[in-house]
Amino acid sequence: MRDLPQASHAEMANAIRFLAADAVERAASGHPGMPMGMADVATVLFSRFLKFDAARPDWADRDRFVLSAGHGSMLLYALLHLTGYPGWEIGTMRDFRQLGSPAAGHPEYGHGAGIETTTGPLGQGIATAVGMALAEEMDRARFGADVVDHRTWVIAGDGCLMEGISQEAISLAGHLRLSRLVVLWDDNGITIDGGTEAATSEDQRKRFEASGWQVLACDGHDAESIASAMALAQQATRPVMIACRTTIGKGAPAKAGTAKCHGSPLGAEEIAGARAALGWAHGPFEVPEAVRSAWAAAGARGSAARLDWEARLAASAKRGAFLAHHQGGLPEGWREALAAHRAGLSGSGKAMATRKASGAALEVLTAIVPQLIGGSADLTGSVNTLTKATLPVTPQDFAGRYIHYGVREHGMAAVMNGMALHGGYRPYAGTFLVFADYLHPALRLSSLMGLPVTYVLTHDSIGLGEDGPTHQPVETLAMLRATPGLVTLRPADAIEAAEAWEIALDRATGPTAIVLSRQDLPVLRKDGGAGNAAARGGYVLAEAGCGPREVTLVATGSEVSLAVEARAALEARGIGAAVVSLPSFELFRSQRPEYRAAVLGNGLRIGIEAALRFGWDEVIGAEGGFVGMTGFGASAPAEVLYRHFGITADAVVALAVERLGHDA
Amino acid sequence: MRDLPQASHAEMANAIRFLAADAVERAASGHPGMPMGMADVATVLFSRFLKFDAARPDWADRDRFVLSAGHGSMLLYALLHLTGYPGWEIGTMRDFRQLGSPAAGHPEYGHGAGIETTTGPLGQGIATAVGMALAEEMDRARFGADVVDHRTWVIAGDGCLMEGISQEAISLAGHLRLSRLVVLWDDNGITIDGGTEAATSEDQRKRFEASGWQVLACDGHDAESIASAMALAQQATRPVMIACRTTIGKGAPAKAGTAKCHGSPLGAEEIAGARAALGWAHGPFEVPEAVRSAWAAAGARGSAARLDWEARLAASAKRGAFLAHHQGGLPEGWREALAAHRAGLSGSGKAMATRKASGAALEVLTAIVPQLIGGSADLTGSVNTLTKATLPVTPQDFAGRYIHYGVREHGMAAVMNGMALHGGYRPYAGTFLVFADYLHPALRLSSLMGLPVTYVLTHDSIGLGEDGPTHQPVETLAMLRATPGLVTLRPADAIEAAEAWEIALDRATGPTAIVLSRQDLPVLRKDGGAGNAAARGGYVLAEAGCGPREVTLVATGSEVSLAVEARAALEARGIGAAVVSLPSFELFRSQRPEYRAAVLGNGLRIGIEAALRFGWDEVIGAEGGFVGMTGFGASAPAEVLYRHFGITADAVVALAVERLGHDA
Repeated sequence: MRDLPQASHAEMANAIRFLAADAVERAASGHPGMPMGMADVATVLFSRFLKFDAARPDWADRDRFVLSAGHGSMLLYALLHLTGYPGWEIGTMRDFRQLGSPAAGHPEYGHGAGIETTTGPLGQGIATAVGMALAEEMDRARFGADVVDHRTWVIAGDGCLMEGISQEAISLAGHLRLSRLVVLWDDNGITIDGGTEAATSEDQRKRFEASGWQVLACDGHDAESIASAMALAQQATRPVMIACRTTIGKGAPAKAGTAKCHGSPLGAEEIAGARAALGWAHGPFEVPEAVRSAWAAAGARGSAARLDWEARLAASAKRGAFLAHHQGGLPEGWREALAAHRAGLSGSGKAMATRKASGAALEVLTAIVPQLIGGSADLTGSVNTLTKATLPVTPQDFAGRYIHYGVREHGMAAVMNGMALHGGYRPYAGTFLVFADYLHPALRLSSLMGLPVTYVLTHDSIGLGEDGPTHQPVETLAMLRATPGLVTLRPADAIEAAEAWEIALDRATGPTAIVLSRQDLPVLRKDGGAGNAAARGGYVLAEAGCGPREVTLVATGSEVSLAVEARAALEARGIGAAVVSLPSFELFRSQRPEYRAAVLGNGLRIGIEAALRFGWDEVIGAEGGFVGMTGFGASAPAEVLYRHFGITADAVVALAVERLGHDA
Repeated sequence: MRDLPQASHAEMANAIRFLAADAVERAASGHPGMPMGMADVATVLFSRFLKFDAARPDWADRDRFVLSAGHGSMLLYALLHLTGYPGWEIGTMRDFRQLGSPAAGHPEYGHGAGIETTTGPLGQGIATAVGMALAEEMDRARFGADVVDHRTWVIAGDGCLMEGISQEAISLAGHLRLSRLVVLWDDNGITIDGGTEAATSEDQRKRFEASGWQVLACDGHDAESIASAMALAQQATRPVMIACRTTIGKGAPAKAGTAKCHGSPLGAEEIAGARAALGWAHGPFEVPEAVRSAWAAAGARGSAARLDWEARLAASAKRGAFLAHHQGGLPEGWREALAAHRAGLSGSGKAMATRKASGAALEVLTAIVPQLIGGSADLTGSVNTLTKATLPVTPQDFAGRYIHYGVREHGMAAVMNGMALHGGYRPYAGTFLVFADYLHPALRLSSLMGLPVTYVLTHDSIGLGEDGPTHQPVETLAMLRATPGLVTLRPADAIEAAEAWEIALDRATGPTAIVLSRQDLPVLRKDGGAGNAAARGGYVLAEAGCGPREVTLVATGSEVSLAVEARAALEARGIGAAVVSLPSFELFRSQRPEYRAAVLGNGLRIGIEAALRFGWDEVIGAEGGFVGMTGFGASAPAEVLYRHFGITADAVVALAVERLGHDA
């Protein structure tokens, strides 16, 4: 190796600053201020503390780095480029924010090596990082500290800390004493609207302390101050927040320290001024060899540790279990056990709420699949997510498999994302369907990232009764069905509920929502769930019997049994009526057109769902009939509400008769 | 008046306890634990501190009481009954949770006198209360302390404080130093899953202090301890949190202090035990006369103050302004000014982003309508909600009309609800459309309560370009359109944007979402917006010209100009094509069927929207064509994305030609 001139910390940090500023300039959009402000902190982290080997971004025991302030994406991209992550050549810096580039506007998981999670919607990164740190503790409890010994580092800005989800995450992390989690707060006093004093007067240090965090501080432009804080953080027994006092856009002569450098290119003059001020005599996308070499060394710094780790893993008694866990395959036998469980249900015929049927399926699955990690947002007894195999995770014991998330739906969803991203785990957790509203921004990221997270959403209609309209979803199914990448299942009975769980476990690359009734429902299927009918999204549950099919009653969930009742009444009048159970719009949409046409028939279609019609015309046509809700619900016993809102077998029969022009 | 035996504090509190426990028992569902636990605190509040006159629930200068822990609704209903609010006779206690009763499962605004806001979804109440307290300060700045001199009292439980929205609310209230806001924290250490120690270790006192609150504590079962804290709170110069240490289900012999009394009836035996333990020798729904009389006196306690206030108001120079404000009518002239503004736009023909057009309309409106209170979740410059007439509200000056909400979308929406509920104000505020996801639970309450709140949602599609899929809504329009009671408008040009604002101002009883482009759009309408075409929801913008209409291109927002382009190309080929602009599904749905049929035509329909098809079949039929998104977006310049995703005039033309079977 040639004898290279040593690069200084300042030069290494400036390399980040100008890659960021020049990339934003070239793209004519982006956020230069944050990367310039946090360049010193990031340089110290990546060159001295972060455990990683750029050549092996898949190293399981690497530290995770989460840029919660995702708009500062060029900070991350510059680091990935400079440290030598595969696929991050200099061209990617020039292609910032261009179609197909890994250097997207915000970090997108799966678009390039080293991007640990998708960020941009503020607050999501810090909450996802809590899930990663939790997964690490859970891994350590399972596989030992000799193979699991890493940290999660987060850069979060004022915006992240203003979002409510950050409090849920901070509170949960403090409660669980996730001592391997370090949040670097970019304390620059600036948000888009100007100084943070316009909107907040919070004492962030005290706030974190209130949740049981250790709080440190540093001068975010002084490498030794930063390093001292990080070294202390490595000794912590609680999660750590380091307040890094920085100047946004550090180096930009006129715009540094102001909102002007937050979200738009600096402009040629300002960049030239920054070059002069920081003594950076290099052109756009030019990094002098000494600096490049220092950064390459930083990127390779962890390779010895990685090799050591590989040796330790090879020697570990837990090697097999660790690899099985991280390679993500599910153990043998779960499908067969679930099939046997379904077959047993068919015989019993006992009415059962699908939330309870889901719990019964989980009993079977959690006993076999150790990757399943349950939880609930303080509704454990209602959502039936706790099983005998899943003991609670506590600050004292991370060997458990059930997380009491507290009344923190949004944080819960993001934490599940983090566990799934960390690798191996298949998290599921429950709340009431209507509160999917509280967690949707994180569920959207489950979908966008393609994570195998399962949402258990119970009390799925006016069927929950007396709790009233605040608790009765009417539009929530539409919201879920509208979310790309999500499969929403609303099972009609205990067998479909068990089928839904098979579908969820088979989905390794995307989230699933299982929508369940509070109230008991009869077991409708007599086939024992052989072949998993629900996996087709929709199927003929009962064909017309008394003659050719004149009407198809298409229903989901609790309304399928109502359709079965209506069918009997129609058939008694000599009207050929079929019942289609449609547990999933998405899965049904993906079937062949011929299948869909055969299932739906070409006569009158009537949709039945205790929710709004919005979205149903895809199935029943604009000319189809619909029996369901037309607005918000009300507070009364469930059976009263079904009558009040006219969601009854009689109403279905009357509508069919009217539409078909038969005599009443 | 007869000489009645005096009722003790304990007896008054026990009256609440047993009304609650017995009502839950009779309904066979509900939450007895919280009312029993907080009965002492509520008794002290309503009998000694809360400024109200039960006979006049509409008294503008009354204190507001918000039961953020809405599941404890029987606490509120018992108080409304005992203090003599109109419509809360003893029968309503028996009808708890029955259809049509004001005593719904959770408090529902508008269902009965004295219910200041709908609560139940946790965290909403405390955030809404911040809006009420803010509105009160704003009222005082406008109308003087002689007519505006009240407080907002909140009961919040552990669940409320775990929800992220509570942090947004606490932080904003602390920042604005809302010294008339008092939160009574029901510190009972219990949530549904059991002891709070399962999920939280937060030091709530320190947390509130970190946000600038004054924190007090009391023994929540000692009337004098409670009263001392409340008296101190009345002297505060900052918002106050009083930690009330209580026992959930106080009095229930076996279940008090446990989760068992949280969410289900106590059972006959336990209630009998509570009667014995508390010395309450009265049957269900029986309140002895002395207690009834003491409570009636509490309910009438404020009538003298109300009469004084009425006299002060009558004498106030601000009387006219105050009444005009609180009676909610908008001043004369705004409609005409907006019409003149629209007419001016028509002539200019200058391309303009609809977000900017919205800002221009707001300039006109805010200059005339003082009730309009603007704001943004830290995106002021992007969402164009700040006008010359709206100066910022600051802790030092509540005369302003613009609120820097910070990066707190969810809190922002709830605060707007609170301002609207307090009376007179017409709040509007902006964020990016995709972040409607963060605020939807509060928007849902705007809809459920029928509040005139306007959501300004910009950057409404892939047209925002480089920020990428995290920032590009594709399912968000469907989510909004699925929300009952909300009118969603996606204007096509500057004129429709101004029409949208007219529609929003005309909606006194429900929220409006105005969905706006980042990118410039040509002015399409040549009629100057006379008559407000957008108010019909959809209309023919351009009829087929070259012959009979063969195809109807139905588009919204930024895609209407694309439809106009496609129409020109189709007409050039001799295909009669009409363009329908469809700014609002909801308003269009409410038109007469004949009108809708005429607008949409009976030929081929093609929907065009840079979003998912979900929900569109209502308009174009399942057999209609659609040009739009099929999944998440990507990061690239907007025009590149439109081509990449095939949302172009060429694609529309090709689809129309193919479907019509014309030669290409």
